Amino acid sequence: MLTKDEIELLTNHLTFWNNLTYKQKDTFMDHTSVNFYKKDSSIHTADLDCVGLLLPKNGTLRVYILSDEGREITLYRIRPGDVCVLSAACVLHTITFDISIDAVTDCELLQVDSPAFSALMQENIYVEAYAYKKVTERFSDAMWTMQQILFMSFDKRLAIFLLDETAKTGSHSLKMTHEEIARYMGSAREVVSRMLKYFSSEGLVQISRGEILITDRKKLLTLV
Amino acid sequence: MLTKDEIELLTNHLTFWNNLTYKQKDTFMDHTSVNFYKKDSSIHTADLDCVGLLLPKNGTLRVYILSDEGREITLYRIRPGDVCVLSAACVLHTITFDISIDAVTDCELLQVDSPAFSALMQENIYVEAYAYKKVTERFSDAMWTMQQILFMSFDKRLAIFLLDETAKTGSHSLKMTHEEIARYMGSAREVVSRMLKYFSSEGLVQISRGEILITDRKKLLTLV
Repeated sequence: MLTKDEIELLTNHLTFWNNLTYKQKDTFMDHTSVNFYKKDSSIHTADLDCVGLLLPKNGTLRVYILSDEGREITLYRIRPGDVCVLSAACVLHTITFDISIDAVTDCELLQVDSPAFSALMQENIYVEAYAYKKVTERFSDAMWTMQQILFMSFDKRLAIFLLDETAKTGSHSLKMTHEEIARYMGSAREVVSRMLKYFSSEGLVQISRGEILITDRKKLLTLV
Repeated sequence: MLTKDEIELLTNHLTFWNNLTYKQKDTFMDHTSVNFYKKDSSIHTADLDCVGLLLPKNGTLRVYILSDEGREITLYRIRPGDVCVLSAACVLHTITFDISIDAVTDCELLQVDSPAFSALMQENIYVEAYAYKKVTERFSDAMWTMQQILFMSFDKRLAIFLLDETAKTGSHSLKMTHEEIARYMGSAREVVSRMLKYFSSEGLVQISRGEILITDRKKLLTLV
């Protein structure tokens, strides 16, 4: 049985909720379980049946692709407030690539099983539209990551900038707004903010108002 | 006015057609035009308003991303029977990356303008589900391309490219310059030339000006 908070999590994030029949809402809740995953454990791999829709109550997931030789590329992360749809890729017939999902931290997840989600997608066009729309958000995230890797310019440039500026002051922290950094680098504030957010999610920096703290100088240097 | 064949093209490929009201069908047809594009002309760029939904009557389109330095990576191609949805990216609010679209050959396209398509997406959930589902197909294509580039050794990638391209035309010969192949593969001309020279020394291909002849298809296949 789901708690009141858990039901609220479902109804708040699944924008199709009000377009479900009472019966469909019941099915949905009956097929939703709460699962715990330990830090660094594998939640989903290409070889296993897909685990279904995931909504983190707490913790962070990492979605990545894996080469035959074991090389990994992180596409994006999933946190409370996000919904992971690619973990239900087996029911999205247009998704033909394999992804893996790990728990970055200890996680508590609401998990809607794949067969039930698949049946609801087929029955209810709002569920189908929601699922595919969510996937396209992740398409944008994945393309952004790919462009960083393939075109390799701005992450490198920003890393160099942060290292240079902090080297000048001998401090680990840089007191500049994103707007100021953008101006120095001949870029746009949004571009700087987005990359800093990415750096932060990778544990390279910590961002607070008007200040950037370098938390992993060594890893930042590997970008350069 | 659309011809009978053109209306058939719309109704056959747009799987939501039977879920439109009569009025919506009329709107759809009223906002669909037939447009011609010359070989190598640009159909869509990041800077321009998006052109809307595209359905090729004939010809081939190339969808690619472009780096600040002008490097191109072809994500996929669109041919008759396909529908291009990313050309309507401006009405898909979850798509935040920029793409460019060129005409690979002379093209004749059915083009549904963006404002009309956007309005229909908002009015009719079946249109919305269709649009996002189509985008996720392209997500799979793009991920495949990215994995080729990021994970695969170049000899394997070039072998696949030569086999794919010649399979399309049913010929043993490919009429493309090394520069053009590099552009399609998101690589550099020198890299392509070097690998082709290696293939040639291995007796896999014969290279002449502007043409590559596959001389040992079987051996080329062993690379894949």
